[in-house]
Amino acid sequence: MEQYSDPLDGIFQALADPTRRAVLARLGRGPASISDLAGPFSMALPSFMKHIHALEGSGLIRTQKQGRVRTCAIEESRFAAIEAWMSTQRALWQGRTDRLEQFVTSAENKEK
Amino acid sequence: MEQYSDPLDGIFQALADPTRRAVLARLGRGPASISDLAGPFSMALPSFMKHIHALEGSGLIRTQKQGRVRTCAIEESRFAAIEAWMSTQRALWQGRTDRLEQFVTSAENKEK
Repeated sequence: MEQYSDPLDGIFQALADPTRRAVLARLGRGPASISDLAGPFSMALPSFMKHIHALEGSGLIRTQKQGRVRTCAIEESRFAAIEAWMSTQRALWQGRTDRLEQFVTSAENKEK
Repeated sequence: MEQYSDPLDGIFQALADPTRRAVLARLGRGPASISDLAGPFSMALPSFMKHIHALEGSGLIRTQKQGRVRTCAIEESRFAAIEAWMSTQRALWQGRTDRLEQFVTSAENKEK
């Protein structure tokens, strides 16, 4: 796994590409070999492997070689980092809405 | 706004940087001027502006200039694209779990 100061850098970088998102969608249905994954893309294998390495580097997938076949599987737990970030962001908005509500309520009470 | 074939490319690209995520976290608490946003970062203004442009290009923030001050605000609706993608991904895993359950149940019924 590559070293990022924050794992989210690598995770979001990995997600910023349509081929990599398509691979994740395919792996969401279950593990698959590299050749099965590469099938739908009109792309040379070395180019496709760069995408696999980016995904593996981010921790979003893991790969395992058995004999001549490398199988890829999604690492669902890694997606928790994205959801945690989204929750934090949402909590900030919520806090802002709550503060606005307090302000309005407080202003209304003063008017009474 | 920059043109990406899929808006998610630009959104995830924008999120793949700690400075840009910190700016989003700050803007989550409410709009702010460029100089207020740049304050906490030991970064030259042109470098900081590149981050602002990346965020604006992705549609995650909008900026507005009034006189000499440019104010940035978060575009909460844009985050819906991330959540939609996560939901689709989660639905695939869920489908897989459901199919596995069906298989196990079916196998158990055959044994009876």
